[in-house]
Amino acid sequence: MNKNWQKLIRSLQLKKFRKKEGLFIVEGRKNVLELLNSDFQTEALFYTKEFAEENPKRLSFLKCMQEETSITNLERNGSLKSNNQVIAVVKTRDNQLDLPGLTEVTLVLDDVRDPGNLGTIIRIADWYGIKNIVCSPETADFYNPKVILASMGSFTRVKLFYQHLDLFFDQLPKKFETIGAFMEGKNIHDYAFNSPSVIVLGNESRGINPDLEKYVNERVSIPSFGGAESLNVGVATAIFCDHFRRQIKP
Amino acid sequence: MNKNWQKLIRSLQLKKFRKKEGLFIVEGRKNVLELLNSDFQTEALFYTKEFAEENPKRLSFLKCMQEETSITNLERNGSLKSNNQVIAVVKTRDNQLDLPGLTEVTLVLDDVRDPGNLGTIIRIADWYGIKNIVCSPETADFYNPKVILASMGSFTRVKLFYQHLDLFFDQLPKKFETIGAFMEGKNIHDYAFNSPSVIVLGNESRGINPDLEKYVNERVSIPSFGGAESLNVGVATAIFCDHFRRQIKP
Repeated sequence: MNKNWQKLIRSLQLKKFRKKEGLFIVEGRKNVLELLNSDFQTEALFYTKEFAEENPKRLSFLKCMQEETSITNLERNGSLKSNNQVIAVVKTRDNQLDLPGLTEVTLVLDDVRDPGNLGTIIRIADWYGIKNIVCSPETADFYNPKVILASMGSFTRVKLFYQHLDLFFDQLPKKFETIGAFMEGKNIHDYAFNSPSVIVLGNESRGINPDLEKYVNERVSIPSFGGAESLNVGVATAIFCDHFRRQIKP
Repeated sequence: MNKNWQKLIRSLQLKKFRKKEGLFIVEGRKNVLELLNSDFQTEALFYTKEFAEENPKRLSFLKCMQEETSITNLERNGSLKSNNQVIAVVKTRDNQLDLPGLTEVTLVLDDVRDPGNLGTIIRIADWYGIKNIVCSPETADFYNPKVILASMGSFTRVKLFYQHLDLFFDQLPKKFETIGAFMEGKNIHDYAFNSPSVIVLGNESRGINPDLEKYVNERVSIPSFGGAESLNVGVATAIFCDHFRRQIKP
């Protein structure tokens, strides 16, 4: 791994450089194997001898810069402290929302700031067969290495779009029902979901921005039976997706 | 904060010393305020000027060693890198399971190793009004600072017991239905829960130990509609608790 690659890979931990280069990194065995099965375009792959021995076929069919290197090099230049077999350098995708392509259910994230939460939400969306997530510009960056890692490979199957949410809701056809996850609202246990829907989840501490409430047709809440003040936004997302899918199959 | 307290507080990041001293630490404003409202016995409290000014009444009624100190001291000796107003030194509780006290639903954790996951599960249990969690000895330690922190104050309202699960199931009265969260099983969306129940969640990568399967009356699974291989154990716990509470109120 020459100095230029080292410098590039290190720089891709920052959003500024990911944007400038149009590249991001994918680390770890499971994530990279899912990457190589996806339609993301891999530009370069650095891996240990172990990874090469385990995946000879995949590597022989892969058309990109490839290099065997030491774990030390992977750990020194990647974002992971340990457990690292491989780092891929990958092209980012266009941030072009295909509005007519939105199907029965879309998640909308209003300032979900924590990369771990965003990664978990992507994994949950993938589990429930939800293909699109629209994010406010302040939501954690899809291409942040922590998001990619926490998604456990699901980043390859769920599309994220960043847009001012006002603009998104202004363009959203009227046939969509907009459901907001609020602390006070209709009980999700009795709620009849419609299709197509968008489900809006808010920021970890402030919830949904009051400026967006005018776009919400239904305020829905997860009933509490104990003393906790709130649920983690990833957990809340899972409960909403699960109830949607109980009623409306893909 | 004298040298002895500093040494003690630092040592309590390790399970060995928590066990030896019968003490653990609680950090951060929200967690400590919940602690002071609970029946845990606080032995010492170290806080910033800001915390003292915000909570004069609570401090005046609190009977324990108290000392105002600097943020630097809190950060140097606690487990948190930043955002720290306060550290409490608190007595651990007896690990004595009250079997006849188990009510409609109890969670059983088989080797949930990640402290963040355990903290999240405690918070979820609290949200759904579940008071007891039985843990295998290899499950993350309740008194680990990361568990306490991730529980967001819910550690004060949920009791955890550590026991060999074989022993627990052998003592469990027959009237309890034992439900296991498996990748393959009855669809939770159609499942009729009974009371009293215990719900068993397994290890992050291996799931439920095969040796415990003989105790499980019902294998239940969360249906998947997409490509993700699994859900995080905290998320799975939430889905199980939510479905239980949809049907059976506290």
